[in-house]
Amino acid sequence: MPAGIAALAAAVARGERRALARAVTLAESTRDVDREHAGQLLACVAGRAGGALRLGVSGAPGVGKSTFIEALGNRLADRGRKLAVLAVDPSSAAAGGAILGDKTRMAALTRRAEVFIRPSPAGAVLGGVGRHTCDAVLLCEAAGYDTVIVETVGVGQSEVAAAAVTDLLLLLLSPLAGDELQGIKRGVMELADVVAVNKADGETLTAATLTAAECRAALNLVRPRSRAWRAEVLTCSAHSGESLAAVEDAVLRCHKALAESGELERRRAAQREERLWSEAAQRLLDKLRRDKKAAGLMPKLLRAVAAGDMTVTAAAGKLAGVEK
Amino acid sequence: MPAGIAALAAAVARGERRALARAVTLAESTRDVDREHAGQLLACVAGRAGGALRLGVSGAPGVGKSTFIEALGNRLADRGRKLAVLAVDPSSAAAGGAILGDKTRMAALTRRAEVFIRPSPAGAVLGGVGRHTCDAVLLCEAAGYDTVIVETVGVGQSEVAAAAVTDLLLLLLSPLAGDELQGIKRGVMELADVVAVNKADGETLTAATLTAAECRAALNLVRPRSRAWRAEVLTCSAHSGESLAAVEDAVLRCHKALAESGELERRRAAQREERLWSEAAQRLLDKLRRDKKAAGLMPKLLRAVAAGDMTVTAAAGKLAGVEK
Repeated sequence: MPAGIAALAAAVARGERRALARAVTLAESTRDVDREHAGQLLACVAGRAGGALRLGVSGAPGVGKSTFIEALGNRLADRGRKLAVLAVDPSSAAAGGAILGDKTRMAALTRRAEVFIRPSPAGAVLGGVGRHTCDAVLLCEAAGYDTVIVETVGVGQSEVAAAAVTDLLLLLLSPLAGDELQGIKRGVMELADVVAVNKADGETLTAATLTAAECRAALNLVRPRSRAWRAEVLTCSAHSGESLAAVEDAVLRCHKALAESGELERRRAAQREERLWSEAAQRLLDKLRRDKKAAGLMPKLLRAVAAGDMTVTAAAGKLAGVEK
Repeated sequence: MPAGIAALAAAVARGERRALARAVTLAESTRDVDREHAGQLLACVAGRAGGALRLGVSGAPGVGKSTFIEALGNRLADRGRKLAVLAVDPSSAAAGGAILGDKTRMAALTRRAEVFIRPSPAGAVLGGVGRHTCDAVLLCEAAGYDTVIVETVGVGQSEVAAAAVTDLLLLLLSPLAGDELQGIKRGVMELADVVAVNKADGETLTAATLTAAECRAALNLVRPRSRAWRAEVLTCSAHSGESLAAVEDAVLRCHKALAESGELERRRAAQREERLWSEAAQRLLDKLRRDKKAAGLMPKLLRAVAAGDMTVTAAAGKLAGVEK
């Protein structure tokens, strides 16, 4: 192992923020040499990881995610929790790649020395972000962060991705019930441990209360994610701070209930297994892409598929060597 | 091949809508026996596929996608085009799995005998939808549809998924510029061939015009998707029908420009290759999951990862047999 990597691991373990930022960058890199170094780094710190409350926060654009995470994060930090915030979704406004920048985002939280905030890297390939979020969580834990918020934007896939790397999922909704709720699939509702309807203030207070009621009704229709915790629906205002204490309390109680019942460890074990299969598949694909026989076969297969003489599935079977 | 599959293929080729619906269901199934039958069916009809204009329509919830597709679809059908609409995204309101139903969606379009509308199946696994959308497109083409709209909801991943199975991508925006545009990553903008800012009517007319201008500015910053076609930004009102003719015209001109320049065939060739690799990876993973040696190794690897003695990447290497 290069001396640089050992030194970086030691600096991460001491909780140095700049070292952590460099380590996360390394873990996110797709360059072969970086991947190798990232593997060595993660092997160094793996024993120190696992200790944080991993909280997923998902919501569509415009629901007020930044304000909410800033307010909740400040509360958690005030309690003495060491907080890291990771923005996963490539379409997040936090990502450097967004068309319009948003420099004022989470300004107060960013100023706190004990809080680590990590937007998606500007150069991140669409679809590639998220693959190594799990490693970023482990690195934050190794650096001593006891609370890691993984933020995702969107409706659908990204909640699933967030749930796959966190202990519990908080769904943030805006009071615009109709379109909003319609867009939420049963499968996403099943993943939510806490639902917070934001903007329960001023003109939108009544709508927020209604949305929460509809949400509770909807939750009654879905299978609970676990027996240890029944999903709670709350209203709050990240803007005014109203009822944020109740949301924070629900998150902490949920985490406690999951931990005490063994559900937390069951979720993590299932996540590890799922990730193991998916990384193994990636390794197999990498190997296949470097395979000379497969590369030689490719033009013929592509011609056959283009001409309609062969289906993609049949061609894939031949490429993978599963079918002769 | 079972006689039933040959009969189904023949019925699809005759353009029978119920047969097409059954064929798409078969292609979407994850059951092993269905997968085999779907493969046989697709092999039967592959020679008849490829003839449609494949249009992706993406937009966040609330931008008015249903109304837009209904209005555009009616125009295309009025021209004598045979239209099929496939809703891909699992979070789509069109999906049977949405919490609140939306039965009035695209009512006028649904009533037209020559239009085929296919929502995502209710039982579709989150994340699993989309994998076989490409097959659904091929089946629609085999049934004689010359225009296939693939509808996706969301910001980010789903546009990439839509672009991967269509010839051109139309991005539908609402005039709520700030949040909306911020949520759109450079990579998504790069994929757009036509951007339509909806709700250019009444109180939101000025905002829509502004959004379109910002969009044009943003497009100047990104690399064009092709030399054959420069992305166009238009405003329209799906509700009043205003300027929909211009949007339809842009779509048809774009398709013509792509076809005549050879770009259309280049895009499809790249899509076929990408899909071939990804299906091959899936086949390899399926094989690995059935592998007794891998299954025997799993508990030991999971324990090592859980204890922090091994990273997931290293364990995946062993599972895949890449590292001994």
